[in-house]
Amino acid sequence: MRDPRDVVSYAEAGVDLDVAEALTARLKSVVDSTRTEGAGGEFGAFGGRFRVDGATDLVASADGVGTKVLVAAAAGVHDTVGEDLVNHCTNDILAEGAEPLFFLDYFACGHLDADVAEAVIGGVARGCRHNGCSLLGGETAEMPGVYEPGTYDLAGFIVGRRIWDLPPKSEVRPGLTLIGFPSTGLHTNGYSLARRVLFDKLGLRPADPFPGTEATVSDVLLRVHRSYLKALRPALDEEAVTAMAHITGGGIQGNLRRVLPEDVTAVVDTGSWSPPIEFEVLGKESGLASRELFSALNMGVGLIVVAAHGRERDVIASAASEGIAAFECGRLEAGTGHVRLAGI
Amino acid sequence: MRDPRDVVSYAEAGVDLDVAEALTARLKSVVDSTRTEGAGGEFGAFGGRFRVDGATDLVASADGVGTKVLVAAAAGVHDTVGEDLVNHCTNDILAEGAEPLFFLDYFACGHLDADVAEAVIGGVARGCRHNGCSLLGGETAEMPGVYEPGTYDLAGFIVGRRIWDLPPKSEVRPGLTLIGFPSTGLHTNGYSLARRVLFDKLGLRPADPFPGTEATVSDVLLRVHRSYLKALRPALDEEAVTAMAHITGGGIQGNLRRVLPEDVTAVVDTGSWSPPIEFEVLGKESGLASRELFSALNMGVGLIVVAAHGRERDVIASAASEGIAAFECGRLEAGTGHVRLAGI
Repeated sequence: MRDPRDVVSYAEAGVDLDVAEALTARLKSVVDSTRTEGAGGEFGAFGGRFRVDGATDLVASADGVGTKVLVAAAAGVHDTVGEDLVNHCTNDILAEGAEPLFFLDYFACGHLDADVAEAVIGGVARGCRHNGCSLLGGETAEMPGVYEPGTYDLAGFIVGRRIWDLPPKSEVRPGLTLIGFPSTGLHTNGYSLARRVLFDKLGLRPADPFPGTEATVSDVLLRVHRSYLKALRPALDEEAVTAMAHITGGGIQGNLRRVLPEDVTAVVDTGSWSPPIEFEVLGKESGLASRELFSALNMGVGLIVVAAHGRERDVIASAASEGIAAFECGRLEAGTGHVRLAGI
Repeated sequence: MRDPRDVVSYAEAGVDLDVAEALTARLKSVVDSTRTEGAGGEFGAFGGRFRVDGATDLVASADGVGTKVLVAAAAGVHDTVGEDLVNHCTNDILAEGAEPLFFLDYFACGHLDADVAEAVIGGVARGCRHNGCSLLGGETAEMPGVYEPGTYDLAGFIVGRRIWDLPPKSEVRPGLTLIGFPSTGLHTNGYSLARRVLFDKLGLRPADPFPGTEATVSDVLLRVHRSYLKALRPALDEEAVTAMAHITGGGIQGNLRRVLPEDVTAVVDTGSWSPPIEFEVLGKESGLASRELFSALNMGVGLIVVAAHGRERDVIASAASEGIAAFECGRLEAGTGHVRLAGI
């Protein structure tokens, strides 16, 4: 029998981020071999850039919602993961200065239940409406033998237009301030870890109360990934933003460093906010070290803005206009292109 | 024990096309609720249309390769399904008059094997190079519990630009001729049926000879979905094409009718070509009626062109320039918006 205080390492929870990272490096030359005239942007950016007709700058991104689909299936709540997906994709292209134009979904399952599919795709459509993008098409695939019984997967693809001309990476300089935007929960990352801890280790079911809260496990885990489009639009229109990092797989360390030049370090003050209770519970019950926890989960911060010089208040006011309490969470220093988590 | 001559119905093979069709109808209003200014094109078209900046007509499509991924996994041949996927998507937007600009992939599995993933995505990149489109991004997801052990799924999203201004549907008129473009095999449809017949009923393995041929089962089943972009480019440039139907799930009946007005019937002369041996074997061993077989498989025809009036030879010459022996396979008559398969 396993010791209930065993550390649940992320690899043990079934996901090996090192293999994924090595693969990404190996794919770079393969991807580069396909570059055509319009292709732009950096490999590893939040969205790929493509210029059409020498004038229109498109930004595109593909994503899924990870094993959040398993929580949705277990809870029998199918109408929210689609919205998660659209919001996730919206934030990815927002980080490249783009607003959404259109979206396509891919829904695949072992056995097609039309009610489930309609609920899932209905969630996609709601997300599209909220973000002002058109659900231009999609594919529904029934693939017995590929998907475990009762499960499905959902992937999405977004195309936006770059309407905000963010500064080049070289303008991300020491002295600038980081502004954290609260997440609504896990968003779409860390669900293999969360399921392992809550369902396997603690033996909870979706309808049980989430420890320390009055909400159910499924309510807490299925909270919809927040779209930051509306909360950032005023700040972007006023050129108060130097860069943005959408905090997804890899956490703050893995994502904030994507916007850093090699001679700049981001120092994140982890004492500047209190991670919501679900992160505390997952931290305590998994036994993970804080550093590992911060790379598996967003820890309550869904997006980090590098504010333009002296424009911190404008970024915070922009968030407040949508009811989001953004806050200063760190600063940039001369350094090495990495993220330092101060206080853990 | 089951009678070995039992009819293998398509539903019995694990895929219910009626449920899928009913779902599509239910989704129409959901999708319509998301329409924004730039959205265009008809629901049910081969690709969705979106106009950017009032000038650039984009066409996008999402797709997968169905359970062809299971054949690839069983055969241990992972570097071709990616090319299948890109070619499939390319043909879909070609049918709407677009040439590819860029592509994104979604690769998901239960356990990430970097060699397999690199092979799969390498195939995607090769398909992109052949079709002149840029692999702009992608997502690799490791999702234990969603995917059956040893399996993976692959979805793709393509965006192209509409450079050929095909006539409106109202110009698809009685008297026009249909030109069939040969497929290379099953392309990406009918694999649940094929696996059921070949693996389950006949007990064949991927390395065994395909009945009546000198090729192996996996060689026959994994032949790459043909891209018709290059073979149709001259005909499209010369305005010799009135409409195109990419023959995928639903077969000739299900796809050719997508380009028909309500008062036109397409009469396909099934005696105008001989389906390659794999279709004969699947027909005989499944015991399916010809009509059902034609809606599950492409039967050797991967794309059908409605030639512009008097331009049949130009379409056939365009195909011949790429070594493809296109042929007259029917005609349009006054009718009811359906496809009639003459000769079966």
